[in-house]
Amino acid sequence: MTNHENRRKKASSPDVTIVAGNGLVDRRALLLGAVAGVSLPGAAARADALAIEPWMTTPGAPFSAYGQPSHFEEKTARSFASAPGTTGAGAARTPLHLLHGAVTPNGLHFERSHSGVPDIDPARHRLVLHGLVARPLVFDLDALSRYPMESRFAFIECGGNSAALNAPEPAKGNAQALHGLVSGAEWTGVRLATLLDEAGLDPAARWLLAEGADAAGMCRSIPIEKALDDALIALYQNGERIRPSNGYPMRLLLPGYEGNMQVKWLRRLKAMASPAMTKDETSKYTLLGADGIAQQFVFPMEVKSVITRPSPGLALTEPGYWEISGLAWSGLGRISKVEISADGGKSWAEAQLQGPVLSKALTRFRLAWKWSGGPAILQSRATDETGAVQPTRAALLERRSPRGIYHFNAISSWRIDEKGETANVYA
Amino acid sequence: MTNHENRRKKASSPDVTIVAGNGLVDRRALLLGAVAGVSLPGAAARADALAIEPWMTTPGAPFSAYGQPSHFEEKTARSFASAPGTTGAGAARTPLHLLHGAVTPNGLHFERSHSGVPDIDPARHRLVLHGLVARPLVFDLDALSRYPMESRFAFIECGGNSAALNAPEPAKGNAQALHGLVSGAEWTGVRLATLLDEAGLDPAARWLLAEGADAAGMCRSIPIEKALDDALIALYQNGERIRPSNGYPMRLLLPGYEGNMQVKWLRRLKAMASPAMTKDETSKYTLLGADGIAQQFVFPMEVKSVITRPSPGLALTEPGYWEISGLAWSGLGRISKVEISADGGKSWAEAQLQGPVLSKALTRFRLAWKWSGGPAILQSRATDETGAVQPTRAALLERRSPRGIYHFNAISSWRIDEKGETANVYA
Repeated sequence: MTNHENRRKKASSPDVTIVAGNGLVDRRALLLGAVAGVSLPGAAARADALAIEPWMTTPGAPFSAYGQPSHFEEKTARSFASAPGTTGAGAARTPLHLLHGAVTPNGLHFERSHSGVPDIDPARHRLVLHGLVARPLVFDLDALSRYPMESRFAFIECGGNSAALNAPEPAKGNAQALHGLVSGAEWTGVRLATLLDEAGLDPAARWLLAEGADAAGMCRSIPIEKALDDALIALYQNGERIRPSNGYPMRLLLPGYEGNMQVKWLRRLKAMASPAMTKDETSKYTLLGADGIAQQFVFPMEVKSVITRPSPGLALTEPGYWEISGLAWSGLGRISKVEISADGGKSWAEAQLQGPVLSKALTRFRLAWKWSGGPAILQSRATDETGAVQPTRAALLERRSPRGIYHFNAISSWRIDEKGETANVYA
Repeated sequence: MTNHENRRKKASSPDVTIVAGNGLVDRRALLLGAVAGVSLPGAAARADALAIEPWMTTPGAPFSAYGQPSHFEEKTARSFASAPGTTGAGAARTPLHLLHGAVTPNGLHFERSHSGVPDIDPARHRLVLHGLVARPLVFDLDALSRYPMESRFAFIECGGNSAALNAPEPAKGNAQALHGLVSGAEWTGVRLATLLDEAGLDPAARWLLAEGADAAGMCRSIPIEKALDDALIALYQNGERIRPSNGYPMRLLLPGYEGNMQVKWLRRLKAMASPAMTKDETSKYTLLGADGIAQQFVFPMEVKSVITRPSPGLALTEPGYWEISGLAWSGLGRISKVEISADGGKSWAEAQLQGPVLSKALTRFRLAWKWSGGPAILQSRATDETGAVQPTRAALLERRSPRGIYHFNAISSWRIDEKGETANVYA
């Protein structure tokens, strides 16, 4: 029997449990070893399968002080665009479709800057904590580094991520272009609550102004409850000092809140009785409702998910088994469930969540799929531990002005055509 | 009251609970906000505390496709050495003392190579699975990438890590030089069990030969129980494709087993009835006992911990509060407890473990310490969920030949002198 006959036989094997329309396969079937029933691509090995390649015949490259990806991975890069006439007012997007797992490597963490990435000398940088406190304090990096540290995995999502899906016609673009303003990392730093305690917070203080040391002077108002809850002055990102594009030498980390508030290059925190009404929270980062009224201070990023594979640019080369995989997150807590549809929302099956499932962190989900070779519309729908469920696009837009752009968290749809190619659609 | 007077007052504050000798402080005291009682370094802010720095007055750097650390972090680098006459037979070590959290960034993951880092073209690379199987299989990277994926955090430790501590006199060196052949990452790939199932493993198969595509032809024998348990063919490291120095485009991941077995640049797995007795498991990577008998095939790395701060090179600049922090891990499961001593093992206090505490992964631990300014000997002692406890160096060496080097997991000691400087000692 040839390998092709072998595959055909497998493809028709009856021992696969279909759990939702258009080929979604029970994840338990996979765990029990029934993968072989859905046609997998391992080819029969021949005696000459392994060539002696040139890299086996001569010593390889020497050691390096700081390693880099293979030069064969050049396409695994951030894509970026700046406002006209600038080089640093815009965003660089994470290539979600080329990554796997739940950690974003530091070189590919998304970046949103309003006036470029400052080159800060950490020996000169200071953080001042003042305003409604008994003892105004100033910290250099060495001083901050002596405080009790804490680490946590957290996603950061730009308030404007997925904004293109507000448009009346579906944009062309891949997961990176459409949804790439979200990333995940392990952050380590000092609890802001510890510093506020050290400074002696006045009970009249209800807000903190957070100011960055970039040329844009990024300023946002932070509610004191969040500052006293799980906010960190983050100094490390995935083990090493925070990258310049993510706030070196320190940034505010507000787990689950919109990215813009997690002020990078943090230099000042001022305790206040009222919000400061800065340019960055009045002219931007407000939610424009269908009634024309803008909601200000909507902080947590709502429950959301995106399928990263298959996704545009990753074509399905043949019918048979493919894994559907993606990321889910919620600014309100843990992801409790992700459901997947292969028929545009008619039927749903529950995906497997990769542990550890952590609060306000990216969660990888996966589900087995037997692609028939026919058209399909893939969707994912996440639920968080508060019971919040991703809305349909129609339901979300009913509440929003067509001119609104922020906090788009609706279910998104990839259409797969009979060639196996994938595109963003509204369904 | 000046800031110095303020600090002195704090240093004598009575509201700190000492839990073990020489200043170890109850971690709950910190959580309850009693940090201020142990003298912290925030200075009183003056009106002129914040200068307008040059990076605030001009737009910063433009976006980049793949980000890099700040140039101010040049010292956060791997240190490396090669065997005489080679450039790639040796090791590059993780700068544990400069990192924080539990993730090692990919550029700083330790690396042990026997003939350099091969420059593998992923389009040409193949993995063959053959020997005692019903259907020998060959996979290219695209084929492997279609199988069900799994992610897990895992430490990898070289079997020879900390070998210098076998020497009769304590070596000079910092945490990186002495203990830097251990790192942690999130790895994503395909379960080896899935591939063995697909190939139809013969019940007579008890071992797998794993062969790398480097010029050293690294070969190790893997027990079939491990292959069927939690072994992965790892394709991704912290989200992106595995770095060349860690096995691009694929490596064997055997959570908890000695690093050398987790064959990088994996090209071949052969199912066998007996181990292959390769050069890499007979001439090296065996444990030489005090009785002159070498134990072969001791696979899991035993429970271990190391204090990364304070540690040599990170001087304590003044008496008062310092956080003791480090990493613990066990090849047999989760870390259940880390104890810290500041008096050379006379008394111990339990450190706080940073969650999530995961099986066979690095676990960050921390404990508050009030340094008196006098001499101290810091030690950490980890216990894992099997009940295994790190031995003292004396107890470990009683069982080992003085010429042995592998699997050193004893308690190590940093001596702090009255200048606040730290050195490796035996205590």
